[in-house]
Amino acid sequence: MLAEFVRDRCAEHVRGVPGAELVAGLLGEYVAGGKYLRSTFAYIGWLCGGAGDSDAALRAAASMELLHAFALLQDDVMDASPMRRGRATAHVRIADWHRARGQAGDAGRFGESAAILLGDLCLVWAEQMLRESGLSAAALGRAWPYYDALRGELAVGQFADLFYDARRRPAMADVLDMTRRKSGNYTVRRPLELGAALAGCDQVVLRALAGYGELVGEAFQLRDDLLGVFGSPAVTGKPDGGDLRERKATSVVVLAGELATPSQRERLDRLCARDRLTEAEIAAWRGLIEETGAVTQIERMIENRATTAWAGLENAAVEGAPLDAFVLTVLRDLAIRATDRVW
Amino acid sequence: MLAEFVRDRCAEHVRGVPGAELVAGLLGEYVAGGKYLRSTFAYIGWLCGGAGDSDAALRAAASMELLHAFALLQDDVMDASPMRRGRATAHVRIADWHRARGQAGDAGRFGESAAILLGDLCLVWAEQMLRESGLSAAALGRAWPYYDALRGELAVGQFADLFYDARRRPAMADVLDMTRRKSGNYTVRRPLELGAALAGCDQVVLRALAGYGELVGEAFQLRDDLLGVFGSPAVTGKPDGGDLRERKATSVVVLAGELATPSQRERLDRLCARDRLTEAEIAAWRGLIEETGAVTQIERMIENRATTAWAGLENAAVEGAPLDAFVLTVLRDLAIRATDRVW
Repeated sequence: MLAEFVRDRCAEHVRGVPGAELVAGLLGEYVAGGKYLRSTFAYIGWLCGGAGDSDAALRAAASMELLHAFALLQDDVMDASPMRRGRATAHVRIADWHRARGQAGDAGRFGESAAILLGDLCLVWAEQMLRESGLSAAALGRAWPYYDALRGELAVGQFADLFYDARRRPAMADVLDMTRRKSGNYTVRRPLELGAALAGCDQVVLRALAGYGELVGEAFQLRDDLLGVFGSPAVTGKPDGGDLRERKATSVVVLAGELATPSQRERLDRLCARDRLTEAEIAAWRGLIEETGAVTQIERMIENRATTAWAGLENAAVEGAPLDAFVLTVLRDLAIRATDRVW
Repeated sequence: MLAEFVRDRCAEHVRGVPGAELVAGLLGEYVAGGKYLRSTFAYIGWLCGGAGDSDAALRAAASMELLHAFALLQDDVMDASPMRRGRATAHVRIADWHRARGQAGDAGRFGESAAILLGDLCLVWAEQMLRESGLSAAALGRAWPYYDALRGELAVGQFADLFYDARRRPAMADVLDMTRRKSGNYTVRRPLELGAALAGCDQVVLRALAGYGELVGEAFQLRDDLLGVFGSPAVTGKPDGGDLRERKATSVVVLAGELATPSQRERLDRLCARDRLTEAEIAAWRGLIEETGAVTQIERMIENRATTAWAGLENAAVEGAPLDAFVLTVLRDLAIRATDRVW
């Protein structure tokens, strides 16, 4: 249904524009190529309401993937990321298309601007798809505050992400706060709440899901931060050691700085200040991060969060929150899958 | 009410983020500093319904300025525009702030990314402000299709705008088509339709407003194209001859190419191919454009559109479209003001 929605929107808006086929193809890929985490959490949130399966709710949940496509398209431009899911990023491919046509002007800049605009379209279409999902006005009315919070946090979190640079050694507390705003809430908590609000769940359930979502979301992002340093390109679909190359101040990078001995810290700072990094330097940087104990500690933080999240949910169910066995099982599995060690 | 809405949203989302005051200040300026054309047309559309003044409708109309702030913030990044309304553009000022704080990383790139994100926030908040305006769900339900069309056209039009480059000599017909999509519909027709749909106007009125809006919007953009080449910075708030510097394929630039004699065209092409333009070259380019007769013809096109637009509306009223005298007078004045020669 996502593919269909995007195809219809392209037919409506993009038709007749130069590069229309390229754009439609890119949008289809960005929308359909992921792990569907956010739409899954939104649909599980819906199921917490006890009304069972619904095509309208499925469409509402699927709209999360369009919102995610917006975030990916624009983040990749801002981070100047060359690859996403094992392929060149949208802005790179649009620039190539521009160059191949022999257009005048700066192809790189054109690609970036066009990718930003595609992101804007996805942002608009996500909201449209949710609004037109077929759910009642009352259901949507309950969900909009969560949706607005989610979109606001996403933009502000990305701003903070750009602002913190590994070279300036931000504090771990600030980085965790940013993590929570940007991807923690956005990946798990808000989608769950959105689905549950659509289904009319009461405050007890919403609070239980919020607690679970915050912890699992944070664990997910901590895992993602480990992958950004240590993940193999085959798993991440991104260049080797991508976060180090981009000098991102992610949790594991910042924690390593805080745990480092003076001599380790000196070596870390020297690597971080390099203009360009060789493969050997990336490997050395990785080794140093491990030596500081940061990886072990982040692993512990992930496990701790996943366990606490699940225990909190189980407690809430025992204390009477109306969460059925199927939903609980799925959420336990998702807490593990979303934060699992897969590199 | 706009300032208040933006202040509340900033308090909700931007608080505690580095640079929060800068961001809140910039947003306030971008939202409040314009001519309020789009919100005015939306409110006039509302008045066509005959229900009279309404605070809720005023809020809905005001949300158009947030949408416009989104367009300005992001267009200025994509066009690398240094000035807007007589001040440095948002991305330039954020870059300066970044530099002044001695942050690591590329300040220019940071400024551009942050301005894009501010634009995203405005896009999201515009929709939220419209949705929360206080108008009934039925009224909003009638208006969403126009709103979705408007936002889609805006992004696709900007894409086409980036694509057409004066150095590639696009055809006048394509440029006019882009003009219609991007700013014609966005500035006049869609806001009018949106307001009228909110007010529950019938198809006769909606059609009359669409016809008027398309023509006045096009005239407005043609005037803007003339200002982009000939407007003084005191009037435009932008650098002298801005569209020539950016090699924009605007109506007057493209028409000059089509009307030029072989020798004029050769001189035009030579100027267009320059890497950098001196003041003297800008002046020469302007003179050449006037020599081709393009300016006279664009002036004629503007007058023709404004007159036809107004005549069409008057005819519709005579033939029974329920448009009262006050609304007709305002629309006649706006057709003149929005397209007037003010340089």
